[in-house]
Amino acid sequence: MTDFRSDGALALEWVASYLERVGELPVLSQVEPGAIRAALPASAPDEPEPFAAVLEDLDSILVPGLTHWQSPRFFAYFATTGAEPGVLAELLTAGLNQVGILWRTSPALQELEELTLDWLRQLVGLPDEFTGHIEDTASTGVLAAVIVARSLQPDRNVLVCSEHAHSVGEKAARLLGLELRKVPTDDRFRMRPELVHAEDACAVIATIGTTGMASVDPVPEVADVCAEAGTWLHVDAAYAGSAAILPELRHQFAGWERADSIGVNPHKWLGVPMDCSVLWTSRRDAFRDAFSLVPEFLRSPDDAVNLSEVSIPLGRRFRALKLWAVLRCYGRTGLEERLREHMRLAELFEGWVRDEPGWEVTAPRHFSLVCFRREGSDEDNELLLERVNESGEVFLSHTRFGDRYQLRLAVGSFRTTEDDVRLAWDVLRREAAAL
Amino acid sequence: MTDFRSDGALALEWVASYLERVGELPVLSQVEPGAIRAALPASAPDEPEPFAAVLEDLDSILVPGLTHWQSPRFFAYFATTGAEPGVLAELLTAGLNQVGILWRTSPALQELEELTLDWLRQLVGLPDEFTGHIEDTASTGVLAAVIVARSLQPDRNVLVCSEHAHSVGEKAARLLGLELRKVPTDDRFRMRPELVHAEDACAVIATIGTTGMASVDPVPEVADVCAEAGTWLHVDAAYAGSAAILPELRHQFAGWERADSIGVNPHKWLGVPMDCSVLWTSRRDAFRDAFSLVPEFLRSPDDAVNLSEVSIPLGRRFRALKLWAVLRCYGRTGLEERLREHMRLAELFEGWVRDEPGWEVTAPRHFSLVCFRREGSDEDNELLLERVNESGEVFLSHTRFGDRYQLRLAVGSFRTTEDDVRLAWDVLRREAAAL
Repeated sequence: MTDFRSDGALALEWVASYLERVGELPVLSQVEPGAIRAALPASAPDEPEPFAAVLEDLDSILVPGLTHWQSPRFFAYFATTGAEPGVLAELLTAGLNQVGILWRTSPALQELEELTLDWLRQLVGLPDEFTGHIEDTASTGVLAAVIVARSLQPDRNVLVCSEHAHSVGEKAARLLGLELRKVPTDDRFRMRPELVHAEDACAVIATIGTTGMASVDPVPEVADVCAEAGTWLHVDAAYAGSAAILPELRHQFAGWERADSIGVNPHKWLGVPMDCSVLWTSRRDAFRDAFSLVPEFLRSPDDAVNLSEVSIPLGRRFRALKLWAVLRCYGRTGLEERLREHMRLAELFEGWVRDEPGWEVTAPRHFSLVCFRREGSDEDNELLLERVNESGEVFLSHTRFGDRYQLRLAVGSFRTTEDDVRLAWDVLRREAAAL
Repeated sequence: MTDFRSDGALALEWVASYLERVGELPVLSQVEPGAIRAALPASAPDEPEPFAAVLEDLDSILVPGLTHWQSPRFFAYFATTGAEPGVLAELLTAGLNQVGILWRTSPALQELEELTLDWLRQLVGLPDEFTGHIEDTASTGVLAAVIVARSLQPDRNVLVCSEHAHSVGEKAARLLGLELRKVPTDDRFRMRPELVHAEDACAVIATIGTTGMASVDPVPEVADVCAEAGTWLHVDAAYAGSAAILPELRHQFAGWERADSIGVNPHKWLGVPMDCSVLWTSRRDAFRDAFSLVPEFLRSPDDAVNLSEVSIPLGRRFRALKLWAVLRCYGRTGLEERLREHMRLAELFEGWVRDEPGWEVTAPRHFSLVCFRREGSDEDNELLLERVNESGEVFLSHTRFGDRYQLRLAVGSFRTTEDDVRLAWDVLRREAAAL
């Protein structure tokens, strides 16, 4: 059994020490499939074990099976940070164990969620008709937005996005039985608005910061098309949206204030631990009409709007606490500093690649993601990436566009320094030379 | 900014002290709508603040806005526990900040999730063809199961459940554009299997432990109907499923092993902090066919089945860690002890109500939920409940069946003692006498 104070001190020290040494661990887990499970007992224990035993197995068995998202040398997908104030806020969240169902089941949860999303709305420069709530992931957010859009126009069975939109669009379409129409893109990987046919679409997804190469769809033109056709516009800014805090990047977000719904993931680029995906909408009534369903056992004397009335799950964790802690403990200036540093590091890396014979930058860079490749075949580049990742020194991922295998380096961890980015470049060149 | 060790010690002490004093706080928050938000700044700070400032506002502003789900005198809805090992595991989860997308993005996350759900499967006595994954809530789990069911039979546009099934069924039907058919129940609030018409239904939801009165649908007979009609059977045991650990209650779960999918929420009655909702299925291939979609940027050299291929969200938190910690730190015997004690306390309370003139028990009791009312009108009972909850001493909720307003007392917190249940009864009688 647990003595909360002494076991808690062990757990806290474990995390503190983990965060100190995470930079020395192989970034990508090097275990074989099944190895972790095979190392653990096949059944739960009959008798209670001490919490210290959990920590021991965490060290000896689980840590080798972790891919270290907290590592300063994690450059794959979109790099993230579970920043310290957010980590400690999660301890508070679990200790309080609030279950947000109705307003009355946790007024603080609901009001802090609404307030912090208003803080963030101001920081990214959206107008005040946008109100928000927190979803687990952008997958759920997109699904929810499309459900609302279709509820308004049930006879429109088409969902539109660009060929470079995230697969969540395709997933939402499949789950809801909609036809997905992918719009071709231009030479900068932007949705071509003149090819968007929205008349029979319930929703169009435009992306600011696509997953593959962080391209930016021409949102103002797409918004025009949607307005003309009376079609719901969802702007997916899951990765890049946090960067709208920077005045010098605000132009990338032109037109997003015309969206019906917008998704931004503070768990991606704003230091908030998984999971915290924001869904703003300028049409909360439409969300409420689509989702609200208050059965008798949940009727209550107050008449507040409950967050469960605008989203899929009935109950929710107190996620706002970690967003609140991060926004306060960094402040606007602290977040700006880190986002700017990431932009600087990505620009630096991009320059190194551009200047090196035999390497090329393969997509325009708008944010902290650099797409590049080495001369040679797709197989050569794939093999290069495998060798780099197997070294454990850094972890990068890939994508495919222009009919070629492409390498990606995403800067996004608050712990990443110039030395880490330089190491990535050194490892890439070293492994390329050894091929 | 944060010093992780010293701020962490503050946060840990805050939670330890909260858990010590939570029993003395008014269970249901007594604030007015809007009061919490109004007491906080309208915008994020420009400059960083210390983490201690977060804790100060938590104390002075947020705590009055909490409804204390951790209180031993929380008897509303279904009472829960965020048990200590689970709370500390959430600190670890946030510190590690794993993002489960593909197996390789966190082998430990995926394999521990599969393993702990196998541990729990054994504990509740399900056969080994059931494999599981963790969802945020049963709302999402039911939605996912119905999506799979409909993908198998897209021409069947009906979802069936009993008139006492949880509103998640109605929500799933609405979101997916299905017709919901509610089956009448018998005098023990059980779905009447002879009235289930499943030929045109993609899925039937049977419930073991309904939300209103914890009634138990006749699952074997419903399974026969589903088998005959080739219809997916989902068993919703979100609340009661944890009690299948007790051999003496196993008979309530007869037939659930014939389900295609089963939902059980360890965050309800098994001490695991929000959120941890288990979805088991004997037809994982059908889940994979419905949900799997691996875009290029996520292709990886290994060929493990990724949990994102069997569920709605692409990324997931390391939720298995808290389930693992609770199962280990309590052990089978420790969990059995607590579940048995809850059954005993509910039986005790039921006896007091039954023996008291002017009060009646209004539904058969199968688990730790007692439904009852005081003689008089619905308005009298509603007023009684409001006065009880406004006292802050205990928190109960209500439902409606038999065309009457009904009171509910749910035992489910590991912290609840006989004294707490006795207090609830004392407060109920005191307020009734004062009316």
